[in-house]
Amino acid sequence: MILEIATIEVKDGASADFEAAVRAATPCFQRARGCKGLALRRSVEQPNRYFLVVTWETLEDHTVHFRNSPDFQEWRQLAGPFMAAPPSVEHNTLALTAF
Amino acid sequence: MILEIATIEVKDGASADFEAAVRAATPCFQRARGCKGLALRRSVEQPNRYFLVVTWETLEDHTVHFRNSPDFQEWRQLAGPFMAAPPSVEHNTLALTAF
Repeated sequence: MILEIATIEVKDGASADFEAAVRAATPCFQRARGCKGLALRRSVEQPNRYFLVVTWETLEDHTVHFRNSPDFQEWRQLAGPFMAAPPSVEHNTLALTAF
Repeated sequence: MILEIATIEVKDGASADFEAAVRAATPCFQRARGCKGLALRRSVEQPNRYFLVVTWETLEDHTVHFRNSPDFQEWRQLAGPFMAAPPSVEHNTLALTAF
């Protein structure tokens, strides 16, 4: 299982609109191949910074199948207008669950 | 509930030692006031990059109580030697769980 973390800086004053856009775009992720979860987290130190946390079965489910799908275009059309810059995307895997 | 994400770059070849140090330091977090969970994740794109993900009841449980405790010193003594640089720490809160 792969966790995608997209760090997204939103425009000043666009937080509520951005959160609503993520909510509206949820079906794009829900029907994506291998997509197992979607959460949105917000930085305490930088309130304009969000982390879109998406769980994928495989890396390719995100980087190949989702990114080349119409649902990716729809997601970006919904949320893109509220982003201050393109998202910075990184993937990680679980190394250890201590407790 | 606050999620601390400490981004930690480890020295080349130090991954196994670093993971063992996190495992050894687990009790430091387990007995910390307000600490509710600890996981270690590893970047796919940058294998020397780890994310220590710690769940705290409040921000101050981490930034005040833990950082001023002997357990913080012990954690750093255990894991510090394998870090290539001081961790970069950020906190976030849940904005939305879509699914």
